[in-house]
Amino acid sequence: MSPRHDVRGPVLIVGTGLLGTSLGLALRELGVEVGLENRSPSSLHLARDLGAGEPAGPGFQPRLVVVATPPDVIVPHVAAALRAHPHAVVTDVASVKGGLAEAVASEVGDAVARFVGSHPMAGRERSGAAAADSDLYQGRTWVICPHATADADAVAAVRRLAISVGSLPVVMDAGEHDLAVAAVSHVPQLVASLTATRLADLPTEALALAGQGVRDVTRIAASDPMMWSAIFAANARSVLPHAEALLDSLEDVVGALRTAAEEGPGAPGVMKAFAGVIEGGRRGVSRIPGKHGGAARRYAEVTVFVPDKPGELGRLFAEIGAASVNIEDLRLEHAAGAKLGVATLSVLPARVAELTAHLEELGWRVMA
Amino acid sequence: MSPRHDVRGPVLIVGTGLLGTSLGLALRELGVEVGLENRSPSSLHLARDLGAGEPAGPGFQPRLVVVATPPDVIVPHVAAALRAHPHAVVTDVASVKGGLAEAVASEVGDAVARFVGSHPMAGRERSGAAAADSDLYQGRTWVICPHATADADAVAAVRRLAISVGSLPVVMDAGEHDLAVAAVSHVPQLVASLTATRLADLPTEALALAGQGVRDVTRIAASDPMMWSAIFAANARSVLPHAEALLDSLEDVVGALRTAAEEGPGAPGVMKAFAGVIEGGRRGVSRIPGKHGGAARRYAEVTVFVPDKPGELGRLFAEIGAASVNIEDLRLEHAAGAKLGVATLSVLPARVAELTAHLEELGWRVMA
Repeated sequence: MSPRHDVRGPVLIVGTGLLGTSLGLALRELGVEVGLENRSPSSLHLARDLGAGEPAGPGFQPRLVVVATPPDVIVPHVAAALRAHPHAVVTDVASVKGGLAEAVASEVGDAVARFVGSHPMAGRERSGAAAADSDLYQGRTWVICPHATADADAVAAVRRLAISVGSLPVVMDAGEHDLAVAAVSHVPQLVASLTATRLADLPTEALALAGQGVRDVTRIAASDPMMWSAIFAANARSVLPHAEALLDSLEDVVGALRTAAEEGPGAPGVMKAFAGVIEGGRRGVSRIPGKHGGAARRYAEVTVFVPDKPGELGRLFAEIGAASVNIEDLRLEHAAGAKLGVATLSVLPARVAELTAHLEELGWRVMA
Repeated sequence: MSPRHDVRGPVLIVGTGLLGTSLGLALRELGVEVGLENRSPSSLHLARDLGAGEPAGPGFQPRLVVVATPPDVIVPHVAAALRAHPHAVVTDVASVKGGLAEAVASEVGDAVARFVGSHPMAGRERSGAAAADSDLYQGRTWVICPHATADADAVAAVRRLAISVGSLPVVMDAGEHDLAVAAVSHVPQLVASLTATRLADLPTEALALAGQGVRDVTRIAASDPMMWSAIFAANARSVLPHAEALLDSLEDVVGALRTAAEEGPGAPGVMKAFAGVIEGGRRGVSRIPGKHGGAARRYAEVTVFVPDKPGELGRLFAEIGAASVNIEDLRLEHAAGAKLGVATLSVLPARVAELTAHLEELGWRVMA
């Protein structure tokens, strides 16, 4: 299943955390020579022991350098790599890209042409080399942000790297990238955390009413404070306009809630304010692309009830697998305290009847 | 699989939308006599044709009345039912419970003893009788809010109703219920809609970077504006303190973003403000109960890569089903434009190695 690889090595990876070590593992599997660098010898040796590459000695001559250090020390590492390896292409993997090329240029001048910033949109809840996996980049978007004076060869080298480890390269202006991730990643993280904070002091009985909605909204709130604080700080300029707009809308909502609380739900303007919020959300969510990046596609949903007994979910999977209907998506819910789980299957509308009949015949309670 | 039933009928259902019609279907399956009422004859006849019961004639004598009308007309319908059926127990299914018993008492006096408000936490994205299903209440929490002068027999009747259709009854004070749903349902809906609104004017290339995080945070933003506006208006007093606290926190965040944007990410206080937001969210999300209502339980995750070819997901389901490992949860993601989906399976940590080996043996790319 390995994609064809045409990374031109050797590759030097600076920083052996989750992203750096995973990249080393993936490149080693492809047979690319990988050198590793890390300030901490123990972290470096762990990455080597896992098979991500060998510690890069003083004579190591990379053709491509990937800086995968924490975001606040990227510029000096990129500059050092451009100076130490005068023929190598250098990229980084940080999640904020604006101003990076300018900062590098102010250190190394024209050599910035060999630097192309990038952002593989890969990660997991655990961090560090111990959580690394050669498949981390499979199926992920890898954004490449060439600056105005970047060499075309350097851009091509980063693109080959992304494709070789299973990612989908997307070229984008650095400022546009930062605004995009502010809206589709950083603001959602912010509101998930703020919403979850509201749960901290609730009585236990109240939390027992938590359903799938609040679970979905707050899932990403279980994130790493250090990493996210650094991201908010680094991308403050792009997050700010979205956060300000959010604040304005929330002020309007609080005003309408106050009116409704004081004058009753029928007070003038109340319903219009609330309906506007929900309508705005409907417009926005409909723009998120569906599977395969196409326009959001309407699948029909079939709900199956799964008794809470060992093996039942496995039996359902096996019997869905045996159906001749393609399942596009699957979502599982558990009501707190209930003896039943609810599985929601997404299928093409034309296949609903067939799947429902198949499952009912096998004894499942189904709701189409 | 039907639960044992001891609902004492006949049951009158007032309002034949999604909730009323689904309840009628479930009760008819149990053999309970069901009468139906609706202002709209065509909606009434649809519910009858679906098998939810028979239109209630003038002589119909229910022992239990369920008012399942829109929330803004519940009080007159409950009062009318208490007057028309002087020996019947009356309940409703609206999602806001505070003040209801008081409003009913001001219309019918002591007869309010036969009224017990309740809130089955069931629903789906579609509404109306056409979307009804006898299994709608299976595995859901059904909150019962007895007021101080409610008859114990009336409370017991509503509890039997909930259990008979497969729900889990939970008794709670009306005010506590409203504060609870404000935090675990209404505020999450509000922030999901406000966050999704931020996507409405983004360039298409930016939306292509949307990952699973923003999809989860905004999933419920595709909700019905009319229904949600009525809920916000009716529960304004309980939603308001949460919305105000959210506004305060968001103001602090905007302040920190401004400082970081103007003075740089290293400005004093910036990191502390952001870390506080993420930490608060981590504390809150850790309080959401896990499966079965117990304390949130840490499952280990196994990630499987699913090539985007017809049948591959079905094959995965079949092979997971054949494994002897109990799958506690499953989440599917698709990177926009990628040729690969990512399935995340939750299992007990002790079973990770076994499941990973089983799937790898069958040729799957697995990340544990």
